[in-house]
Amino acid sequence: DVARRLADQVGFVLEVDRLKSVLRRGRVADGSRYENSAEHSWTLALMALVLSEHAAEPVDLATVLRMVVVHDIVEVDAGDTYVYDEVGRADKEAREAQAADRIFALLPADQAAEVRALWDEFEHGDSPEARFARSLDRFAGFLLNHASGGITWRENGVTADRIHARNEEIDEGAPQLWREVQLRL
Amino acid sequence: DVARRLADQVGFVLEVDRLKSVLRRGRVADGSRYENSAEHSWTLALMALVLSEHAAEPVDLATVLRMVVVHDIVEVDAGDTYVYDEVGRADKEAREAQAADRIFALLPADQAAEVRALWDEFEHGDSPEARFARSLDRFAGFLLNHASGGITWRENGVTADRIHARNEEIDEGAPQLWREVQLRL
Repeated sequence: DVARRLADQVGFVLEVDRLKSVLRRGRVADGSRYENSAEHSWTLALMALVLSEHAAEPVDLATVLRMVVVHDIVEVDAGDTYVYDEVGRADKEAREAQAADRIFALLPADQAAEVRALWDEFEHGDSPEARFARSLDRFAGFLLNHASGGITWRENGVTADRIHARNEEIDEGAPQLWREVQLRL
Repeated sequence: DVARRLADQVGFVLEVDRLKSVLRRGRVADGSRYENSAEHSWTLALMALVLSEHAAEPVDLATVLRMVVVHDIVEVDAGDTYVYDEVGRADKEAREAQAADRIFALLPADQAAEVRALWDEFEHGDSPEARFARSLDRFAGFLLNHASGGITWRENGVTADRIHARNEEIDEGAPQLWREVQLRL
Protein backbone atom coordinates (compact mmCIF):
# COMPACT_ATOMS: atom_id res chain seq x y z
CA ASP A 1 0.00 0.00 0.00
CA VAL A 2 0.90 3.68 -0.30
CA ALA A 3 2.00 4.13 3.32
CA ARG A 4 4.37 1.18 3.15
CA ARG A 5 5.85 2.28 -0.19
CA LEU A 6 6.38 5.79 1.11
CA ALA A 7 8.02 4.53 4.30
CA ASP A 8 10.47 2.48 2.23
CA GLN A 9 11.16 5.38 -0.14
CA VAL A 10 11.80 7.80 2.72
CA GLY A 11 14.03 5.21 4.41
CA PHE A 12 16.05 4.94 1.21
CA VAL A 13 16.44 8.71 0.88
CA LEU A 14 17.66 8.97 4.48
CA GLU A 15 20.05 6.04 4.11
CA VAL A 16 21.72 7.37 0.99
CA ASP A 17 22.00 10.84 2.51
CA ARG A 18 25.33 9.44 3.74
CA LEU A 19 26.66 10.04 0.24
CA LYS A 20 27.25 13.60 1.51
CA SER A 21 29.92 12.16 3.82
CA VAL A 22 31.76 10.19 1.12
CA LEU A 23 34.77 12.31 0.20
CA ARG A 24 36.33 12.11 -3.22
CA ARG A 25 40.05 12.54 -3.81
CA GLY A 26 39.44 15.72 -5.80
CA ARG A 27 38.48 19.18 -4.59
CA VAL A 28 35.73 21.66 -5.34
CA ALA A 29 36.64 24.18 -8.05
CA ASP A 30 38.13 26.78 -5.69
CA GLY A 31 40.37 24.12 -4.11
CA SER A 32 39.17 24.92 -0.57
CA ARG A 33 38.16 21.37 0.41
CA TYR A 34 37.53 17.87 -0.87
CA GLU A 35 34.36 17.31 -2.83
CA ASN A 36 31.76 14.81 -1.64
CA SER A 37 29.97 12.38 -3.93
CA ALA A 38 26.50 13.93 -3.44
CA GLU A 39 27.52 17.38 -4.63
CA HIS A 40 29.60 15.76 -7.38
CA SER A 41 26.41 14.04 -8.57
CA TRP A 42 24.69 17.42 -8.70
CA THR A 43 27.52 18.77 -10.86
CA LEU A 44 27.02 15.91 -13.31
CA ALA A 45 23.29 16.65 -13.50
CA LEU A 46 24.01 20.32 -14.14
CA MET A 47 26.57 19.41 -16.79
CA ALA A 48 24.10 17.05 -18.45
CA LEU A 49 21.65 19.95 -18.61
CA VAL A 50 24.01 22.43 -20.29
CA LEU A 51 26.38 20.15 -22.25
CA SER A 52 24.09 17.53 -23.82
CA GLU A 53 24.51 19.09 -27.27
CA HIS A 54 28.11 17.81 -27.17
CA ALA A 55 27.14 14.16 -26.76
CA ALA A 56 28.65 11.90 -29.43
CA GLU A 57 25.19 10.53 -30.28
CA PRO A 58 21.70 11.96 -29.62
CA VAL A 59 20.77 11.27 -25.98
CA ASP A 60 17.54 11.28 -23.98
CA LEU A 61 18.27 13.94 -21.36
CA ALA A 62 15.84 12.50 -18.80
CA THR A 63 17.68 9.16 -18.88
CA VAL A 64 21.05 10.86 -18.48
CA LEU A 65 19.73 12.88 -15.52
CA ARG A 66 18.22 9.84 -13.79
CA MET A 67 21.46 7.94 -14.35
CA VAL A 68 23.85 10.55 -12.98
CA VAL A 69 21.65 11.14 -9.91
CA VAL A 70 22.04 7.49 -8.87
CA HIS A 71 25.47 6.65 -10.38
CA ASP A 72 27.46 6.99 -7.13
CA ILE A 73 24.91 5.78 -4.54
CA VAL A 74 26.79 2.49 -4.06
CA GLU A 75 29.64 4.52 -2.54
CA VAL A 76 27.54 4.82 0.62
CA ASP A 77 28.85 1.31 1.38
CA ALA A 78 31.77 0.91 -1.01
CA GLY A 79 33.42 4.33 -0.65
CA ASP A 80 34.82 6.36 -3.51
CA THR A 81 37.54 4.69 -5.56
CA TYR A 82 40.04 7.18 -6.94
CA VAL A 83 40.20 6.95 -10.70
CA TYR A 84 44.02 6.74 -10.54
CA ASP A 85 44.05 4.11 -7.74
CA GLU A 86 44.95 0.91 -9.59
CA VAL A 87 44.84 -1.23 -6.43
CA GLY A 88 41.44 0.04 -5.33
CA ARG A 89 40.10 -0.39 -8.84
CA ALA A 90 40.92 -4.10 -8.82
CA ASP A 91 38.04 -5.06 -6.49
CA LYS A 92 35.86 -1.99 -7.13
CA GLU A 93 33.34 -3.91 -9.19
CA ALA A 94 32.79 -6.60 -6.55
CA ARG A 95 32.52 -4.10 -3.68
CA GLU A 96 30.07 -1.94 -5.56
CA ALA A 97 27.88 -4.82 -6.74
CA GLN A 98 27.50 -5.96 -3.12
CA ALA A 99 26.60 -2.40 -2.11
CA ALA A 100 24.04 -2.17 -4.90
CA ASP A 101 22.40 -5.42 -3.74
CA ARG A 102 21.90 -4.03 -0.25
CA ILE A 103 21.07 -0.39 -0.87
CA PHE A 104 18.72 -0.56 -3.84
CA ALA A 105 16.74 -3.28 -2.04
CA LEU A 106 15.60 -0.65 0.47
CA LEU A 107 13.26 0.66 -2.23
CA PRO A 108 9.96 -0.96 -3.26
CA ALA A 109 10.80 -3.84 -5.64
CA ASP A 110 9.77 -2.07 -8.87
CA GLN A 111 11.91 0.96 -8.07
CA ALA A 112 14.82 -1.17 -6.85
CA ALA A 113 14.84 -2.84 -10.26
CA GLU A 114 14.57 0.51 -12.05
CA VAL A 115 17.48 2.08 -10.15
CA ARG A 116 19.59 -1.07 -10.49
CA ALA A 117 19.01 -1.05 -14.25
CA LEU A 118 20.07 2.60 -14.44
CA TRP A 119 23.21 1.90 -12.44
CA ASP A 120 24.07 -1.18 -14.53
CA GLU A 121 23.56 0.81 -17.71
CA PHE A 122 25.95 3.47 -16.44
CA GLU A 123 28.55 0.93 -15.30
CA HIS A 124 28.49 -0.97 -18.57
CA GLY A 125 28.42 2.15 -20.72
CA ASP A 126 26.38 0.31 -23.32
CA SER A 127 23.99 3.06 -24.45
CA PRO A 128 24.52 6.58 -25.85
CA GLU A 129 23.17 7.97 -22.55
CA ALA A 130 25.58 5.88 -20.46
CA ARG A 131 28.57 6.75 -22.65
CA PHE A 132 27.73 10.44 -22.37
CA ALA A 133 27.19 10.20 -18.58
CA ARG A 134 30.53 8.42 -18.17
CA SER A 135 32.23 11.11 -20.21
CA LEU A 136 30.71 13.77 -17.97
CA ASP A 137 31.92 11.88 -14.89
CA ARG A 138 35.49 11.94 -16.17
CA PHE A 139 35.26 15.46 -17.50
CA ALA A 140 33.94 16.80 -14.17
CA GLY A 141 36.84 15.25 -12.29
CA PHE A 142 39.32 16.65 -14.76
CA LEU A 143 37.77 20.12 -14.90
CA LEU A 144 37.60 20.68 -11.14
CA ASN A 145 41.13 19.39 -10.58
CA HIS A 146 42.37 21.62 -13.35
CA ALA A 147 40.43 24.62 -11.99
CA SER A 148 41.88 24.10 -8.51
CA GLY A 149 45.44 24.16 -9.90
CA GLY A 150 46.03 20.41 -10.08
CA ILE A 151 46.64 20.08 -6.32
CA THR A 152 45.08 16.61 -6.18
CA TRP A 153 47.20 15.31 -9.03
CA ARG A 154 50.36 16.52 -7.30
CA GLU A 155 49.22 15.09 -3.95
CA ASN A 156 48.75 11.70 -5.57
CA GLY A 157 51.72 11.78 -7.92
CA VAL A 158 49.53 11.58 -11.00
CA THR A 159 51.48 12.52 -14.12
CA ALA A 160 50.16 14.12 -17.32
CA ASP A 161 50.47 10.90 -19.31
CA ARG A 162 48.28 9.05 -16.79
CA ILE A 163 45.74 11.88 -16.89
CA HIS A 164 45.74 11.55 -20.65
CA ALA A 165 45.33 7.76 -20.56
CA ARG A 166 42.52 7.73 -17.98
CA ASN A 167 40.51 10.48 -19.64
CA GLU A 168 40.78 9.37 -23.22
CA GLU A 169 37.46 7.54 -22.91
CA ILE A 170 35.76 10.95 -22.75
CA ASP A 171 36.24 10.92 -26.52
CA GLU A 172 33.74 8.07 -26.87
CA GLY A 173 30.79 9.89 -25.29
CA ALA A 174 31.67 13.54 -25.92
CA PRO A 175 34.52 14.20 -28.39
CA GLN A 176 34.27 17.97 -28.00
CA LEU A 177 34.85 17.64 -24.23
CA TRP A 178 37.90 15.46 -24.89
CA ARG A 179 39.33 18.21 -27.10
CA GLU A 180 38.68 20.62 -24.22
CA VAL A 181 40.72 18.36 -21.90
CA GLN A 182 43.59 18.13 -24.37
CA LEU A 183 43.73 21.93 -24.62
CA ARG A 184 44.34 22.05 -20.87
CA LEU A 185 46.81 19.15 -20.59
CA ASP B 1 30.47 28.58 -32.88
CA VAL B 2 30.94 25.36 -30.88
CA ALA B 3 34.18 26.42 -29.16
CA ARG B 4 32.66 29.68 -27.92
CA ARG B 5 29.47 27.98 -26.69
CA LEU B 6 31.49 25.35 -24.86
CA ALA B 7 33.75 27.96 -23.27
CA ASP B 8 30.69 29.81 -21.95
CA GLN B 9 29.07 26.59 -20.71
CA VAL B 10 32.23 25.50 -18.90
CA GLY B 11 32.59 28.98 -17.42
CA PHE B 12 29.04 28.73 -16.09
CA VAL B 13 29.64 25.29 -14.54
CA LEU B 14 32.79 26.54 -12.79
CA GLU B 15 31.09 29.72 -11.56
CA VAL B 16 28.10 27.95 -10.03
CA ASP B 17 30.40 25.36 -8.42
CA ARG B 18 30.39 27.90 -5.58
CA LEU B 19 26.94 26.59 -4.66
CA LYS B 20 28.93 23.92 -2.77
CA SER B 21 30.06 26.66 -0.40
CA VAL B 22 26.59 28.08 0.27
CA LEU B 23 25.57 26.65 3.63
CA ARG B 24 21.94 26.12 4.51
CA ARG B 25 20.61 26.53 8.04
CA GLY B 26 19.74 22.82 8.23
CA ARG B 27 22.03 19.83 8.62
CA VAL B 28 22.64 16.60 6.76
CA ALA B 29 20.55 13.68 8.02
CA ASP B 30 23.08 12.47 10.60
CA GLY B 31 23.34 16.00 12.06
CA SER B 32 27.12 16.09 11.72
CA ARG B 33 27.35 19.37 9.77
CA TYR B 34 25.39 21.99 7.85
CA GLU B 35 24.15 21.01 4.43
CA ASN B 36 25.22 22.98 1.36
CA SER B 37 22.88 23.98 -1.44
CA ALA B 38 24.56 21.82 -4.10
CA GLU B 39 24.13 18.56 -2.21
CA HIS B 40 20.63 19.69 -1.20
CA SER B 41 19.83 20.03 -4.91
CA TRP B 42 21.02 16.46 -5.44
CA THR B 43 18.68 15.29 -2.67
CA LEU B 44 15.75 16.96 -4.43
CA ALA B 45 16.66 15.23 -7.71
CA LEU B 46 16.86 11.88 -5.94
CA MET B 47 13.52 12.53 -4.24
CA ALA B 48 11.95 13.48 -7.56
CA LEU B 49 13.15 10.15 -8.91
CA VAL B 50 11.68 7.97 -6.16
CA LEU B 51 8.68 10.04 -4.98
CA SER B 52 7.07 11.29 -8.20
CA GLU B 53 4.15 8.87 -7.80
CA HIS B 54 3.03 11.02 -4.84
CA ALA B 55 2.69 14.21 -6.89
CA ALA B 56 -0.76 15.79 -6.60
CA GLU B 57 -1.08 15.85 -10.39
CA PRO B 58 0.75 13.85 -13.09
CA VAL B 59 4.19 15.40 -13.65
CA ASP B 60 6.82 15.19 -16.35
CA LEU B 61 9.81 13.83 -14.44
CA ALA B 62 12.40 15.31 -16.81
CA THR B 63 11.01 18.80 -16.18
CA VAL B 64 11.02 18.28 -12.40
CA LEU B 65 14.63 17.06 -12.55
CA ARG B 66 15.81 19.98 -14.69
CA MET B 67 14.00 22.38 -12.36
CA VAL B 68 15.41 21.08 -9.08
CA VAL B 69 18.95 20.96 -10.48
CA VAL B 70 18.87 24.73 -11.16
CA HIS B 71 16.41 25.90 -8.45
CA ASP B 72 19.06 27.18 -6.00
CA ILE B 73 21.77 28.43 -8.37
CA VAL B 74 20.90 32.08 -7.63
CA GLU B 75 22.18 31.47 -4.08
CA VAL B 76 25.72 31.68 -5.46
CA ASP B 77 25.18 35.44 -5.28
CA ALA B 78 22.14 35.81 -3.03
CA GLY B 79 23.00 33.25 -0.34
CA ASP B 80 20.52 30.85 1.22
CA THR B 81 17.51 32.43 2.90
CA TYR B 82 16.29 30.37 5.84
CA VAL B 83 12.69 29.41 5.36
CA TYR B 84 11.87 30.66 8.90
CA ASP B 85 13.78 33.96 8.49
CA GLU B 86 10.99 36.52 8.01
CA VAL B 87 13.40 39.46 7.69
CA GLY B 88 15.58 37.75 5.08
CA ARG B 89 12.51 36.65 3.18
CA ALA B 90 11.35 40.25 2.75
CA ASP B 91 13.95 41.11 0.10
CA LYS B 92 14.70 37.55 -1.04
CA GLU B 93 12.86 37.97 -4.33
CA ALA B 94 14.75 41.11 -5.32
CA ARG B 95 18.15 39.71 -4.34
CA GLU B 96 17.55 36.49 -6.21
CA ALA B 97 16.20 38.16 -9.36
CA GLN B 98 19.38 40.25 -9.55
CA ALA B 99 21.48 37.11 -9.09
CA ALA B 100 19.55 35.32 -11.83
CA ASP B 101 20.16 38.21 -14.24
CA ARG B 102 23.91 37.98 -13.74
CA ILE B 103 24.49 34.22 -13.44
CA PHE B 104 22.23 32.79 -16.13
CA ALA B 105 23.66 35.33 -18.60
CA LEU B 106 26.98 33.46 -18.42
CA LEU B 107 25.36 30.77 -20.60
CA PRO B 108 24.77 31.03 -24.37
CA ALA B 109 21.58 33.09 -24.86
CA ASP B 110 19.28 30.17 -25.73
CA GLN B 111 20.32 28.24 -22.62
CA ALA B 112 20.20 31.33 -20.42
CA ALA B 113 16.57 31.76 -21.45
CA GLU B 114 15.83 28.07 -20.87
CA VAL B 115 17.33 28.02 -17.36
CA ARG B 116 15.68 31.33 -16.47
CA ALA B 117 12.32 29.94 -17.56
CA LEU B 118 12.84 26.83 -15.41
CA TRP B 119 13.77 28.96 -12.40
CA ASP B 120 10.81 31.31 -12.92
CA GLU B 121 8.48 28.33 -13.21
CA PHE B 122 9.80 26.96 -9.92
CA GLU B 123 9.57 30.30 -8.16
CA HIS B 124 6.01 30.97 -9.30
CA GLY B 125 4.85 27.41 -8.68
CA ASP B 126 2.44 27.71 -11.57
CA SER B 127 2.68 24.21 -13.07
CA PRO B 128 2.16 20.71 -11.66
CA GLU B 129 5.93 20.15 -11.96
CA ALA B 130 6.76 23.35 -10.09
CA ARG B 131 4.24 22.65 -7.33
CA PHE B 132 5.68 19.17 -6.88
CA ALA B 133 9.28 20.47 -6.91
CA ARG B 134 8.39 23.11 -4.30
CA SER B 135 6.79 20.44 -2.14
CA LEU B 136 9.95 18.36 -2.37
CA ASP B 137 12.04 21.38 -1.40
CA ARG B 138 10.01 21.86 1.77
CA PHE B 139 9.75 18.17 2.50
CA ALA B 140 13.52 17.68 2.20
CA GLY B 141 14.18 20.47 4.69
CA PHE B 142 11.65 19.05 7.09
CA LEU B 143 12.79 15.45 6.75
CA LEU B 144 16.50 16.11 7.32
CA ASN B 145 15.85 18.39 10.27
CA HIS B 146 13.54 15.80 11.76
CA ALA B 147 16.08 13.00 11.11
CA SER B 148 18.83 14.97 12.82
CA GLY B 149 16.73 15.42 15.94
CA GLY B 150 15.40 18.92 15.26
CA ILE B 151 18.69 20.61 16.28
CA THR B 152 18.28 23.36 13.72
CA TRP B 153 14.77 24.19 14.86
CA ARG B 154 15.95 24.49 18.46
CA GLU B 155 18.98 26.57 17.42
CA ASN B 156 16.68 29.01 15.66
CA GLY B 157 13.79 28.96 18.11
CA VAL B 158 11.40 27.55 15.53
CA THR B 159 8.25 26.20 17.19
CA ALA B 160 6.01 23.36 16.01
CA ASP B 161 3.23 25.72 14.94
CA ARG B 162 5.61 27.65 12.69
CA ILE B 163 6.87 24.38 11.21
CA HIS B 164 3.26 23.48 10.54
CA ALA B 165 2.46 26.82 8.94
CA ARG B 166 5.54 26.96 6.70
CA ASN B 167 5.18 23.38 5.47
CA GLU B 168 1.47 23.31 4.83
CA GLU B 169 2.10 24.20 1.19
CA ILE B 170 3.53 20.70 0.73
CA ASP B 171 -0.11 19.65 0.62
CA GLU B 172 -0.59 21.45 -2.71
CA GLY B 173 2.06 19.52 -4.62
CA ALA B 174 2.24 16.25 -2.72
CA PRO B 175 -0.60 15.60 -0.21
CA GLN B 176 0.83 12.23 0.85
CA LEU B 177 4.12 13.90 1.84
CA TRP B 178 2.22 16.45 3.87
CA ARG B 179 0.53 13.63 5.78
CA GLU B 180 4.01 12.21 6.38
CA VAL B 181 5.09 15.55 7.90
CA GLN B 182 2.04 15.71 10.13
CA LEU B 183 2.77 12.22 11.45
CA ARG B 184 6.16 13.47 12.61
CA LEU B 185 5.07 16.84 14.01
